Amino acid sequence: MSNSRALPLLDPDVQPCCPPLNERPLTAEEAVRTAAMFKALGDPVRLRLFSAVASHEGGEACVCDISDVGVSQPTVSHHLKKLKDAGLLASERRGTWVYYRVEPSVLAAMGQLLTSAAR
Amino acid sequence: MSNSRALPLLDPDVQPCCPPLNERPLTAEEAVRTAAMFKALGDPVRLRLFSAVASHEGGEACVCDISDVGVSQPTVSHHLKKLKDAGLLASERRGTWVYYRVEPSVLAAMGQLLTSAAR
Repeated sequence: MSNSRALPLLDPDVQPCCPPLNERPLTAEEAVRTAAMFKALGDPVRLRLFSAVASHEGGEACVCDISDVGVSQPTVSHHLKKLKDAGLLASERRGTWVYYRVEPSVLAAMGQLLTSAAR
Repeated sequence: MSNSRALPLLDPDVQPCCPPLNERPLTAEEAVRTAAMFKALGDPVRLRLFSAVASHEGGEACVCDISDVGVSQPTVSHHLKKLKDAGLLASERRGTWVYYRVEPSVLAAMGQLLTSAAR
């Protein structure tokens, strides 16, 4: 997909600020910020939609591309917006549709939080 | 801590079964199973408690070791049990106290789900 890299990157400030979970106890502020991201992936329908976007051709998708998770298009839009609000997806409107793509730096930081804690 | 490796490992069957999130859309069953783990980390108090256990000396802690997150001991116990039920902590009773430790294989699998999706 020629325009698959056209979405703007999120502000680096939205990346989790936190050390691996086994380095030290998180502060209250760090926990609020990081828990919001985990919570966004903590709903089965939302997690399926997230994987549908992440695995779609070119790493991006619009609501028009996603139709097989058993929920209505408005519900799909609602969940994608929640994932965006949590900083996990970036979005861009192109004509009729809003396209979403995974925010790799945020995911990598979340993954690091867990894999480093798994030593 | 000499007994820090004494906790039993969880049944390997509780490990997430799923491919990286950008490989293919998760099935409904995979999403239910995996979302439950993310949801367990999606509460700020629970996430702080999790990091308190993970970062405690020897990688394990009992309720008696955790007193600075601003919630009562019964609330701490409640949250640790939820983390255990989600497969993220293993536990063992020793005398008066139940000791919890992080389940590394499950965390590593969750981390993999995210970091591979962040390519």
